[in-house]
Amino acid sequence: MSESPVIDTHPLRLSVFVATSVDGFIATVDGGLDWLNAAVDPSEDYGYYDFLDSVDALAMGRRTYDSIAHIDPLPFGNRPVFVFTREKGLTRSGVVFIDASPADAAVTFKLMGLERVYVDGGVLISSFLEHGLIDDMTITQVPVLLGVGTRLFHDVIRPTALTLESSRSWPSGVVSQVYSI
Amino acid sequence: MSESPVIDTHPLRLSVFVATSVDGFIATVDGGLDWLNAAVDPSEDYGYYDFLDSVDALAMGRRTYDSIAHIDPLPFGNRPVFVFTREKGLTRSGVVFIDASPADAAVTFKLMGLERVYVDGGVLISSFLEHGLIDDMTITQVPVLLGVGTRLFHDVIRPTALTLESSRSWPSGVVSQVYSI
Repeated sequence: MSESPVIDTHPLRLSVFVATSVDGFIATVDGGLDWLNAAVDPSEDYGYYDFLDSVDALAMGRRTYDSIAHIDPLPFGNRPVFVFTREKGLTRSGVVFIDASPADAAVTFKLMGLERVYVDGGVLISSFLEHGLIDDMTITQVPVLLGVGTRLFHDVIRPTALTLESSRSWPSGVVSQVYSI
Repeated sequence: MSESPVIDTHPLRLSVFVATSVDGFIATVDGGLDWLNAAVDPSEDYGYYDFLDSVDALAMGRRTYDSIAHIDPLPFGNRPVFVFTREKGLTRSGVVFIDASPADAAVTFKLMGLERVYVDGGVLISSFLEHGLIDDMTITQVPVLLGVGTRLFHDVIRPTALTLESSRSWPSGVVSQVYSI
């Protein structure tokens, strides 16, 4: 028995589900989403709730968390929310502040037995992509040009080939694309 | 006969046909397109030649023209190429330097009897969009994240609602979307 103990880890999938304008923005400069709500059709199912049902936890940047922190309870059921920030501590039930690199966070998620984590927020998504840690991305493209705002993709991503798993368009003009990496 | 003479103008369509990475780049920082050629499948017809057949002329920015100026003859048949630049003069057969605003250029194109003009190049496309002058855009999205490069859309576009006319995906993972404005 000379081998090192092997920690039994589940496979982990890190997944993105995000809506963007055709010019690649996820929010206006002030974080506003009115343009998004105006462009989508509530009667169309873009698969968000099926996606949410498939994840065990959420990971998001501090800015994204701050933009939803006023919602109580958070609309993620009992799933833990990991907020990437230098600040320490638990602020509320189910929300954990974490100060970790994407690679360390992925190891931590595996050790927790998480099988699929929803990575949200432009900065955090780009950071995970940069480290080759995102497994799949569902991009819901709404038929609007915003012009300015917060970009989904930041200029730090290394060139990465994607595989299109599915593409579907809706009467509203929304197009959903699922890519694996 | 007290009315002003009416100049009989054809309706004019200003159209975009462009390939982008999923993160919205049309070229690498140095103008390179190797990533694009590697990602597309030559056996798939993304509609470029049908589109080219449908236009009477091309309009492009100086940077875009400079990137193709070494090609002789230019691959646009007999269609005139209008290059937007402060410089004056004809440089070669079929290429016309023009120093005009998008609005003045649109009037000029109408007076020439042009019915559909292909507007190319990120800066010029964004400038025409900013002035509400683009009628339709075919965006061929290739399954790659580039990270950095030349963006299709510049941060000068006013918020604009689009109408999705069609969306088609290909085995290579390329997705073609046609939007009217």
